[in-house]
Amino acid sequence: MSVHLRPEEIEAESFRMIDAEVGPHPWSPAQWPVVRRAIHTSADFDYARTMVFSRDAVARAVAAIRAGRGIVTDTTMALSGISRPRLDAFGIGGVCLVADPLVARTAQKLGVTRSLLAMRTAAANPENGIFVIGNAPTALFELIRLIREEGVRPALIVGLPVGFVGAAESKEALLALERNFPEIPFITNRGRKGGSTVAAAVVNALLILAGEEMS
Amino acid sequence: MSVHLRPEEIEAESFRMIDAEVGPHPWSPAQWPVVRRAIHTSADFDYARTMVFSRDAVARAVAAIRAGRGIVTDTTMALSGISRPRLDAFGIGGVCLVADPLVARTAQKLGVTRSLLAMRTAAANPENGIFVIGNAPTALFELIRLIREEGVRPALIVGLPVGFVGAAESKEALLALERNFPEIPFITNRGRKGGSTVAAAVVNALLILAGEEMS
Repeated sequence: MSVHLRPEEIEAESFRMIDAEVGPHPWSPAQWPVVRRAIHTSADFDYARTMVFSRDAVARAVAAIRAGRGIVTDTTMALSGISRPRLDAFGIGGVCLVADPLVARTAQKLGVTRSLLAMRTAAANPENGIFVIGNAPTALFELIRLIREEGVRPALIVGLPVGFVGAAESKEALLALERNFPEIPFITNRGRKGGSTVAAAVVNALLILAGEEMS
Repeated sequence: MSVHLRPEEIEAESFRMIDAEVGPHPWSPAQWPVVRRAIHTSADFDYARTMVFSRDAVARAVAAIRAGRGIVTDTTMALSGISRPRLDAFGIGGVCLVADPLVARTAQKLGVTRSLLAMRTAAANPENGIFVIGNAPTALFELIRLIREEGVRPALIVGLPVGFVGAAESKEALLALERNFPEIPFITNRGRKGGSTVAAAVVNALLILAGEEMS
C-alpha cells in the first residue's frame, strides 16, 4: 500500500507515472527534470506543454547556483519551499522582503505593491542573482523594468507568477526580453498558471541538477 | 494598465473574471468564496468541479476559527501562506512539525514519513483542532487513522494533498469518513490536484468569512 513506501520510493514511482502519462515530448535531457518536477508538485500536465526555457537556461542556471548567487523570491511560501539543505550546500542565501515593514510602509507611500518594491529593494543588492517569482505579476514586471531601464542583470529568472490580472502578460514580457538581453537566462511558462509551489519545485530541480553535475 | 491597479483592485477584478468564466455553478453562498479563492490562487478551474464540502463545513469551520483552535499544517509552505494577521485576530496559533529534528529522527527510526509523524505528534496536543494538509497523502492517511483508531476529533480538516501516489486515494478515504464521523467537518477535492498554496487559500477564505461574520 502506498503509505508504506519510503519517500524516495514515492517520488520515483511518481516520476515513472509522469513519464508514462506524458509519453514522447520535446524536452531536452537537461530540461525534462525541471518540467517533470513542476508536474510532480502540481499534478498538472499543462506544464508539459507550457514551460519555456531561454537558450541554455538549465546549464546557465546550474552555473549561477554553483557560483552561490543569492536567491530572491516574491513570496515567503516560495522561499520556504526551496530546500534549505540544498541551498546551504552551495552557500546560497535566500531573501524575501515582501513582509519587511519598511518595504510595506514605503510601498504604501509610493502607491505600488509590496511585491514590486520588495523586488526593487532586493535587486539593489549585487549579491542577489537568482530571481524567483511564483506569485506577483507586479514583481516580474518590475524586474523586467529594472533590466531594461536600470542595468540589473540577473544570473537567472524563474518567472512563474499565477493569476488572472497580469500574470500571462508579465510572462509574455519576460519572453520578449530574450531578443534584447539574450545573456539573461530564464525559465517560465505561458498562461495564467504558476505559483509558489511550482516556482520552488523548479528551483529544487535545478539545485539537484547542480549537485549532480558536481559529483 | 494592470500594474497600476492596487492589490485590492487586482483581487476584485480577478474575482469578477472567475465569476464570469465559471458561470452558473452549484456552490452555496457560503461555499463559493472558498472555491473561488482556490481557483484564484491556482488559476485552475478544475476546482470549480472537484471541491467537496462535508455537511455545513463552512459554518463549522467558522466556528472552529472563532473558537481559536490551533492550526496544524503538513508543510511550512502552507503555514507561511496562511495570513498571520488574520490568525492573530482570532488568537490562533499555527504549527508545522515536519522540519522538527526530533520528528525527523523518530520517523527514520520508525520507518514512517516525517509528514506522518509530524501529524501524529501535533494531533496529540488537544489545543490543535484545525488540520491543513496540502502536500502529503501520508499525513492525511495518518489523521484518518487517528480519528478511526485513537479518538482524535478535529474541529476541521482541510485535506488537499497533491500528487500521483496516494493523494487521490487519501481524499477518497477522507470522504468515506463522513458516514461514521458526521460530526467532523472537512473541505477537500477529488483527484490528484491540490497543494500548499490551494490549502492555504482555503484557510484564508475561511478566516475572511469568520471575520465578516463577526463584524
